[in-house]
Amino acid sequence: MSDAPKEIDALIDMMARLPGLGPRSARRAALHLIKKRGMLMKPLAEAMGAVADTARECLNCGNISTADICSICTSEKRRIGEICVVEDVADLWAMERAAVFKGRYHVLGGTLSALDQIGPEQLGIPKLIERVSSEEVTEVILALNATVDGQTTAHYIADQLEHRVRVTSLAQGVPIGGELDYLDDGTITAALRARKQV
Amino acid sequence: MSDAPKEIDALIDMMARLPGLGPRSARRAALHLIKKRGMLMKPLAEAMGAVADTARECLNCGNISTADICSICTSEKRRIGEICVVEDVADLWAMERAAVFKGRYHVLGGTLSALDQIGPEQLGIPKLIERVSSEEVTEVILALNATVDGQTTAHYIADQLEHRVRVTSLAQGVPIGGELDYLDDGTITAALRARKQV
Ligand SMILES: [Zn+2]
Ligand SMILES: [Zn+2]
Repeated sequence: MSDAPKEIDALIDMMARLPGLGPRSARRAALHLIKKRGMLMKPLAEAMGAVADTARECLNCGNISTADICSICTSEKRRIGEICVVEDVADLWAMERAAVFKGRYHVLGGTLSALDQIGPEQLGIPKLIERVSSEEVTEVILALNATVDGQTTAHYIADQLEHRVRVTSLAQGVPIGGELDYLDDGTITAALRARKQV
Repeated sequence: MSDAPKEIDALIDMMARLPGLGPRSARRAALHLIKKRGMLMKPLAEAMGAVADTARECLNCGNISTADICSICTSEKRRIGEICVVEDVADLWAMERAAVFKGRYHVLGGTLSALDQIGPEQLGIPKLIERVSSEEVTEVILALNATVDGQTTAHYIADQLEHRVRVTSLAQGVPIGGELDYLDDGTITAALRARKQV
């Protein structure tokens, strides 16, 4: 509730649902946008509407894309023998910023969790196993967060893929309890280079 | 740079320009929106576009409105004898949440600042003086932030309006260095009730 006109109140309510914004920062952000309504608010609304209409998950890897199959999966420059498994698209972006990995990805969209009733199917792990069989995959690199859930998920995937393919994981450099998306490019590069078999 | 499709990169760049969001939180917020693209992103884009098209400053008081004159200025329930002067629309909203003030407002849009070359004209102070003359105003309540710039501006306005109208300011309860928009309703109510002549 901001005591603004109802259209603006509705906007603030929606903005307050974004991660990192509470009611007060949503009011501040909305006022900032209204002050810059020609230069920022209108273009932002249009960009957001366009992305809402076109963005979707890549049917192959789960990456965010504006096509059914993402540009990484369709690129002829990416090695098809290596699949890097990440929890989240934000982690894929972090890997891409490091610019050291030349293979393709598999985005789980989370980690296994008995508490939240998230099993292998919810994470697309059967699809990963299918990709290992049907594509010419020689190595699966597990780039999961160094959290308990992340490592539980990594062990589960390693077990499933045992004897089918070489399974490695990011090793050196990922701090205990750390999350990939917080790391600098150099740390990610070092961790990938020093990857070890699970 | 997120290594997302270029439409999504453009969206993240714009979101990173909002107060309270940096590049990383903008990426997180964009991914959250894309995950909820039907239920949140699309309605948010539409609400934002609608507000960008309709929001404007009230020609009388500077409040944000979807009409030329805002609903507070046109309300027959508000006392026309009292004008409350605030720095920002966020402060007006904070006053309205306290629900204790029944008059109308004048939004300065900032404070006097020699450094930033902000003079009385940039803040609509001539318009305030004109309103005091042309409307049946009996009291101007200065509800400016308890900062150096806020108090300098309050003294300037009080000097300009001397002998024309009773000028008071919020007194008890506003902490030194504090900003109105951070205060709870009770503190604002107490400060308004204990207002004193400047
Ligand atoms: Zn893909
Ligand atoms: Zn008004």
